[in-house]
Amino acid sequence: MSDNRVPVTILGATGMVGQRAVQLLADHPWFKVGHLAASPRSAGKPYREACRWHLPGAPHGGVGDQPIVACDADVLTALDGPGLALSALPGSVARQVEIPLAERGWAVVSNASAHRMDPRVPLIIPEVNAAHLDLVAQQPWEGALVTNPNCTSMPLVLAVTPLHRAVGIEAFTAASYQAVSGAGYPGESAWDLIGNVRPHPGDEEVKMASEPAKILGDLVDGAIRNAPFTGSARCVRVPVADGHLVAVHARARRPISPEEASDLIRAWDGGGLDLPSSPRPVLRMTDLRDRPQPRFDADEGGGMAVTIGRVEPCPVMGLKLFCLAHNTVRGAAGAALLNAELLHARGLTPS
Amino acid sequence: MSDNRVPVTILGATGMVGQRAVQLLADHPWFKVGHLAASPRSAGKPYREACRWHLPGAPHGGVGDQPIVACDADVLTALDGPGLALSALPGSVARQVEIPLAERGWAVVSNASAHRMDPRVPLIIPEVNAAHLDLVAQQPWEGALVTNPNCTSMPLVLAVTPLHRAVGIEAFTAASYQAVSGAGYPGESAWDLIGNVRPHPGDEEVKMASEPAKILGDLVDGAIRNAPFTGSARCVRVPVADGHLVAVHARARRPISPEEASDLIRAWDGGGLDLPSSPRPVLRMTDLRDRPQPRFDADEGGGMAVTIGRVEPCPVMGLKLFCLAHNTVRGAAGAALLNAELLHARGLTPS
Amino acid sequence: MSDNRVPVTILGATGMVGQRAVQLLADHPWFKVGHLAASPRSAGKPYREACRWHLPGAPHGGVGDQPIVACDADVLTALDGPGLALSALPGSVARQVEIPLAERGWAVVSNASAHRMDPRVPLIIPEVNAAHLDLVAQQPWEGALVTNPNCTSMPLVLAVTPLHRAVGIEAFTAASYQAVSGAGYPGESAWDLIGNVRPHPGDEEVKMASEPAKILGDLVDGAIRNAPFTGSARCVRVPVADGHLVAVHARARRPISPEEASDLIRAWDGGGLDLPSSPRPVLRMTDLRDRPQPRFDADEGGGMAVTIGRVEPCPVMGLKLFCLAHNTVRGAAGAALLNAELLHARGLTPS
Amino acid sequence: MSDNRVPVTILGATGMVGQRAVQLLADHPWFKVGHLAASPRSAGKPYREACRWHLPGAPHGGVGDQPIVACDADVLTALDGPGLALSALPGSVARQVEIPLAERGWAVVSNASAHRMDPRVPLIIPEVNAAHLDLVAQQPWEGALVTNPNCTSMPLVLAVTPLHRAVGIEAFTAASYQAVSGAGYPGESAWDLIGNVRPHPGDEEVKMASEPAKILGDLVDGAIRNAPFTGSARCVRVPVADGHLVAVHARARRPISPEEASDLIRAWDGGGLDLPSSPRPVLRMTDLRDRPQPRFDADEGGGMAVTIGRVEPCPVMGLKLFCLAHNTVRGAAGAALLNAELLHARGLTPS
Repeated sequence: MSDNRVPVTILGATGMVGQRAVQLLADHPWFKVGHLAASPRSAGKPYREACRWHLPGAPHGGVGDQPIVACDADVLTALDGPGLALSALPGSVARQVEIPLAERGWAVVSNASAHRMDPRVPLIIPEVNAAHLDLVAQQPWEGALVTNPNCTSMPLVLAVTPLHRAVGIEAFTAASYQAVSGAGYPGESAWDLIGNVRPHPGDEEVKMASEPAKILGDLVDGAIRNAPFTGSARCVRVPVADGHLVAVHARARRPISPEEASDLIRAWDGGGLDLPSSPRPVLRMTDLRDRPQPRFDADEGGGMAVTIGRVEPCPVMGLKLFCLAHNTVRGAAGAALLNAELLHARGLTPS
Repeated sequence: MSDNRVPVTILGATGMVGQRAVQLLADHPWFKVGHLAASPRSAGKPYREACRWHLPGAPHGGVGDQPIVACDADVLTALDGPGLALSALPGSVARQVEIPLAERGWAVVSNASAHRMDPRVPLIIPEVNAAHLDLVAQQPWEGALVTNPNCTSMPLVLAVTPLHRAVGIEAFTAASYQAVSGAGYPGESAWDLIGNVRPHPGDEEVKMASEPAKILGDLVDGAIRNAPFTGSARCVRVPVADGHLVAVHARARRPISPEEASDLIRAWDGGGLDLPSSPRPVLRMTDLRDRPQPRFDADEGGGMAVTIGRVEPCPVMGLKLFCLAHNTVRGAAGAALLNAELLHARGLTPS
Repeated sequence: MSDNRVPVTILGATGMVGQRAVQLLADHPWFKVGHLAASPRSAGKPYREACRWHLPGAPHGGVGDQPIVACDADVLTALDGPGLALSALPGSVARQVEIPLAERGWAVVSNASAHRMDPRVPLIIPEVNAAHLDLVAQQPWEGALVTNPNCTSMPLVLAVTPLHRAVGIEAFTAASYQAVSGAGYPGESAWDLIGNVRPHPGDEEVKMASEPAKILGDLVDGAIRNAPFTGSARCVRVPVADGHLVAVHARARRPISPEEASDLIRAWDGGGLDLPSSPRPVLRMTDLRDRPQPRFDADEGGGMAVTIGRVEPCPVMGLKLFCLAHNTVRGAAGAALLNAELLHARGLTPS
Repeated sequence: MSDNRVPVTILGATGMVGQRAVQLLADHPWFKVGHLAASPRSAGKPYREACRWHLPGAPHGGVGDQPIVACDADVLTALDGPGLALSALPGSVARQVEIPLAERGWAVVSNASAHRMDPRVPLIIPEVNAAHLDLVAQQPWEGALVTNPNCTSMPLVLAVTPLHRAVGIEAFTAASYQAVSGAGYPGESAWDLIGNVRPHPGDEEVKMASEPAKILGDLVDGAIRNAPFTGSARCVRVPVADGHLVAVHARARRPISPEEASDLIRAWDGGGLDLPSSPRPVLRMTDLRDRPQPRFDADEGGGMAVTIGRVEPCPVMGLKLFCLAHNTVRGAAGAALLNAELLHARGLTPS
């Protein structure tokens, strides 16, 4: 590892997504773990004492001795000046920290929902709408703030993008089968999920309905014009550790056969991106009738690929398919990291 | 228990649904267990030796000493003449036995898929389309053959019936969260389902798309005219023991608000049926945002009630809701038993 | 239900065990729900608002409108004077409330661990050591305080009691397979238990090692002399909703064959108790090689029976067996309720 | 990969353990996949058609096009003469094939139970009793037959070996928490394991009681003299995909403190073996009170390490601990592969 890798400060380093970010940075070619920021209560404690490690593999990603820093814009900026931050914060805390950091010159790639729908903030999946990054030049802050979508929107948007680009997707209905890691830690009670499934009581369905239209929109005259893309989802938590499966029924502007759809998906190259965390291929088709399945497919492409299967005709909407992504990698920490890589490649991170 | 209860012969008594039928008959006011029919290989063996008991409670439903009879129309008829039979057979075996029994004068209430779409055979949910029973009078057999829908169609059809009767439902998209008991025993491999969900590789989705239109159809000039009801489903097996949850997006002929829909569901009395296995109410609404859930709701109404929740607007189809039923009770053995009760009440069983 | 049933105040009514207690009292012939006591924070709120109901069946046990009372000895006593209380409190809160209640004249049957090993407090399983109730007469309080064992000790002690009475059990090693309801709500994180098992990090093993010797001891000269009964346990949480399975290896004073052991277990009548919650039989033997299993056996006897299987020779300790009990019924709320019934039958509850 | 890697014929290539063997050979430095042998019914079919692939990662290990060969000693020998075979066969088939292969000059490393207790056949864990390999020189066959222990014996024996070598372990009681992959595919029914645990109805407990004494025995005058090591186990299947956890209570010839035991385990180097599949370290200690856990620890050391935790005093046996190993890697395919590496390093494979 070269010594001059860029440090990435992790906001919310002790949570499930923060731990994934630490893990993904362990062997990164461009980046390394910078500050580990968390609640002021934990400040000063070594990372290993500030949280239990929730992932397999080397505990605390090799940085267990590093002390926690308070997740505060002034405190963080005072340390080494503005830098690159990856936010794995819950929405309420993100609201207090992310814009103040951007104001102080930080480049913040956020997984939080707080600012996703802010018209000043691009909601980016690099393979889908890297062009939205131009919005950053107009941001009123010295730094930059870029977000990635919700973990359930992610596989849906990636799966329909090749179809949308080719024929225009107008509407979808979807149902999710969501892993418990999406709820963080401790997250869901085992009592609720053992031998059971549970309709998601939060606003997950709202996010799935609103985020795709922004991501698939066009940047026109310095503003994002949403795609005419209407969606409705049902979200359900299932007893799975990692990997969100989504069943999608989609309506296109013109009839599209499963064969054509499959060919479009297979031919799609995700904008030809070549970032360190880009999976090859981005979309992976399975021909098995009982796949994708989270336990077997979520880790594909280092957790960054989306697996698609059962592309079939739907007499109501036109087309149906299953798609699946690792929710804390492609759907969270890895998504933010890919955005950080994109920012860095475009020269949008502080030097 | 009165001695003159009507014996019900169970076809396929050793399987998961057959065992449920035996269990449901244990304390039935009108019926009792008649012959236990299964594969000729098991003929003569006591029930307790012919199969492992898969359900909680008293093993073999108190009839463990009763010998198995070969599931063959001639053999069965030779015993005591034609009677009432409840078929819990797999489709392929049902095809060889059910019509021969009807020809010999039996009244067969079948849970098998073999003859569900046969135009001569009514596909009945007593609360929904008891009127279709008139088709029996035209059947070319001395006896009768009546079927019930697939375990996943069942909650869907019951949930939308009050809406369909009031405003006309035209189309639905649905996604299921199906319990493993629906696959029989041994059914799904534990390896496939632990910490995992699995798209159903069979023809479950085809059944969900075709059965509702027949059930909701009209009997006109001695034939069932399907309802103009188009559907498309995605079916997924989840690690749940009993209880199928279905997420439904539905389009009605005119806009219908969640409040109106909820009121219609609450007001629906299921045709005012008063059969021994009729639940009260048939449809049970929950106001909790994270319900219905299979582990907590499947046993409601003795496993015969359908629980409905989260009736909400859908920007694509108009309305969305969750519904849930116990798949081997309301969706299989209990459904066939309710049909048997209906036949009996209408004087359509051999005396 | 007669109107003059005795009210039982539930201490800790909002938790998993408190809810079970409310549920078990719903149709009780002697008792009814008295006050619902919980954290002062909840005081005044209707029960249905003070907690989510975690059990199947009628939510809030039919007393959802009843207001919560602060769980404080003075507050509770001021309401209607001393009465009968069932404590489902966590240990730390129990320590502050149970003795003050006893001092004010209450009869407290506690499931908490706080006072189980207090030499003044009997640790009672009615079928095993009802005689220890004589200790109550010596208690320094106007009222009484009686406890029941830990949910994992319970099946172990009940299973070995017939053997201990006949031949003297000296030592055991045990391993538990514990359901998540034993951790209360929210208790275990789903992330930790899905497709996983987890060694219990708490002091469960200490309780299993110490409680049996007290329960099986003798009351001599007004004090309990522990049985010479040494034990060692390993406790592991498994992804099961309800029902603790325990694998026991036991050493007796003289060799005992599995046949003799099984006969002793089958012949044991649990002291011939005839209380409303006494199961018949107390110990239930299964001959199936793959039983007992929590999902199929925990509810036997209304959750109050212990199921025992695979009584076999052990070349190291002499004898081995599996035993299983419903951990929140026989191992918690039902255990305390049975103790309440015993106290009441002996005239030891306030009148 | 060098072209002159030694081909390893997989006996039983289509099963769960056979697939693991294929997977482990994909990138092996010494070996490559030779013939894929399975039931004559599958002979001639490409591997990908002969079985569904049950593991994550590249389906069919990159050899999906290779045709299946009948698992018959004459057929296999006729192909290229005797070679090195890894047997992943069920016991009954192993009995018919393994000795005939050894008679024809093959070196067979078998995971099957068929010949484990045959006095002519060493039962080897390379780190523990590589010296037993001398038994091969006396085998009456032109080739060699070497076995590895049962998947549940494996972690137990590895965990106690450092203690046994230092102070002599005399007896143990154990309880297992066994993953479903140990039952092969389809193996356990999902119905039996969802939200449930199930006492193992087979002869697993017998194997755990008998195999360790042979493995820890001495080779004296050309015969293995069993160690004076008595054991008794309870085996239970739990809803876990991979990884067997074992709770062990052990009695040594003299008292041994947890500290001394932990030091011995940490210091043990497994005979200093340096084979391609040897993990570093062989035994891995965890200090976390709730570990080892299968989902987090089974993959350590490529699935070949054993994780040990909670080494604590036991008032009955002296010492207790938890140990865990990946059951289809360290406990099956990887165990046989390590034996193959040992045979090869000692020049005992056909050249």
